[in-house]
Amino acid sequence: MSTSSTLLEFVAPIEPDLLAMGETLAQELVTDDPSVAEMVEHLSRFQGKQLRASLLLLVARASGNGSPEMPVVAAVVELIHLATLVHDDVLDGAEIRRRLPSLNTTWDNQIAVLLGDWLYSRAFARSTRLTHPLASQLLATTTQAICVGEIRQALGRHRFDASPAEYERIAMAKTGVLYGAAAELGVCYGRLDQEVLGREMRLMGQELGLAFQIADDLLDIEGEEAVVGKSVGTDIADGKVTLPVLHAWRSADPEGRAAIEAAYLDTDCADRRSALREACDLVKGCEQARARADELIASAQRRLLHLPANEMRLSLERVLEFTLERRS
Amino acid sequence: MSTSSTLLEFVAPIEPDLLAMGETLAQELVTDDPSVAEMVEHLSRFQGKQLRASLLLLVARASGNGSPEMPVVAAVVELIHLATLVHDDVLDGAEIRRRLPSLNTTWDNQIAVLLGDWLYSRAFARSTRLTHPLASQLLATTTQAICVGEIRQALGRHRFDASPAEYERIAMAKTGVLYGAAAELGVCYGRLDQEVLGREMRLMGQELGLAFQIADDLLDIEGEEAVVGKSVGTDIADGKVTLPVLHAWRSADPEGRAAIEAAYLDTDCADRRSALREACDLVKGCEQARARADELIASAQRRLLHLPANEMRLSLERVLEFTLERRS
Repeated sequence: MSTSSTLLEFVAPIEPDLLAMGETLAQELVTDDPSVAEMVEHLSRFQGKQLRASLLLLVARASGNGSPEMPVVAAVVELIHLATLVHDDVLDGAEIRRRLPSLNTTWDNQIAVLLGDWLYSRAFARSTRLTHPLASQLLATTTQAICVGEIRQALGRHRFDASPAEYERIAMAKTGVLYGAAAELGVCYGRLDQEVLGREMRLMGQELGLAFQIADDLLDIEGEEAVVGKSVGTDIADGKVTLPVLHAWRSADPEGRAAIEAAYLDTDCADRRSALREACDLVKGCEQARARADELIASAQRRLLHLPANEMRLSLERVLEFTLERRS
Repeated sequence: MSTSSTLLEFVAPIEPDLLAMGETLAQELVTDDPSVAEMVEHLSRFQGKQLRASLLLLVARASGNGSPEMPVVAAVVELIHLATLVHDDVLDGAEIRRRLPSLNTTWDNQIAVLLGDWLYSRAFARSTRLTHPLASQLLATTTQAICVGEIRQALGRHRFDASPAEYERIAMAKTGVLYGAAAELGVCYGRLDQEVLGREMRLMGQELGLAFQIADDLLDIEGEEAVVGKSVGTDIADGKVTLPVLHAWRSADPEGRAAIEAAYLDTDCADRRSALREACDLVKGCEQARARADELIASAQRRLLHLPANEMRLSLERVLEFTLERRS
């Protein structure tokens, strides 16, 4: 069974909501400008698992939030995620290294910046038309946090002496907070009396997001390109010192540390993942990172118990398990 | 008398509002992240004439809008403008041509994208905390229009056969709409009974913004670097076919047109403005563009008559005049 069909099975209970979300998302991507329309076409390749929307909609149904606007709120969350992905394209080191000062690549870079801006403003514009201001307020501050996380990550390239706590601060801002906001909105949008449950679900979402980010880091180091479905080893090429590497570096001797740094910096090396594996005990580093992801998911699972026991909660439990098992 | 002291004189009647606006702006640029704080420091160099905020505050006072939130609304407008400026840095052809695939320039590019995103989300976050949703709604849709305008401009590089109407559509989206939104908010924020005046002021703002853009184009072609205070000739280098060039191209014979295109494309030429002047009747093109700016300002002046005759309206009239006369 492929990963995506497993995920589809998890979200079966909220299929109508997801369809409504997808319709809103499609409407929001409609534009009367033919050139923008053409670019938006290309965006379809970015539309992945829609995990954030699924999380929001599952939490909403599990907690008994029947607001008819939930699919729109979920679509806005996906739009913001899409905007961050488009700007990641510009930030992507691999892209930048391949870049030549030709008109064509210049154009691509520009378009990615502007298209990302367009998506952000589109998301904010839609959120301001919702009945309750919570979504637009929470998503604007969340986007702010994401930017700060991304800035910290950009500045933290090749910083091998960062602490695991600093790694988590960045990953929390970059990935965790949007999952957290999605889960919180699922409970709290349109309801003022759910503060306690909203807080638990926000923390659950943040732990899920952080674990998801660690799983992503592990795939980049251990995964096979054909299975993962995207380039692997890009974190090394981008200078991102992820949690497994951080742990390996901390337990390495000076010689090992120098070898890790060399593997990161050797742009001529064809297989830098192998070089990294030879440089240090990466297997142990991966184990430590995986243990942390397990811990986060275990905590998130406990938080789910605040929800009534129902089919949706069961789906959420399986989504959390999936984070640890995913291979793509 | 220098241009800036003249402007300061115009806005004297709203000095307390402008000070309050500046305080909000400064507060919004405060961040507890030291690396972001450092970048925000650099942003001070972008803080220019604050014409959009002045327009909003003058229109508000002229129309009797005494909402105590007006300086905050004006600060949000300036934040959005600042975000577009920061992203223009990434889009700037000159920057891109100077770019080398070094880590340092990569970092700059990334930071500009992320910092612009941070400013946008900061602006939206502040606007969602305002009492009335008009500001967040109008500014989100306005930002969307700006992005579409910028995308069209990026795609329209080196398109010499574009019509003046197409030029105006782009300039309106890129520059006019934010001026229009600022003026409309000045009248309508917090007031539901000012639709007619709000519409007139929006159109007035759009005409001012469009005229301002044309004046900018003229400065890039005719201005002296030392007076203008920034690089001139960058539009040619960026492939932007501005209104004066568009007119010159339209009245040129096939030989002249080829010479214009050659001046735009000759990256080795040290003085492409001179090459352009030799290629065609640029003086006439500039005259035609200036005539259009005059027309726009005349129309905007007529719209001002919808406001009560007071000191603020007088200031607005002088701001409009200034657009035509400015040398920097």
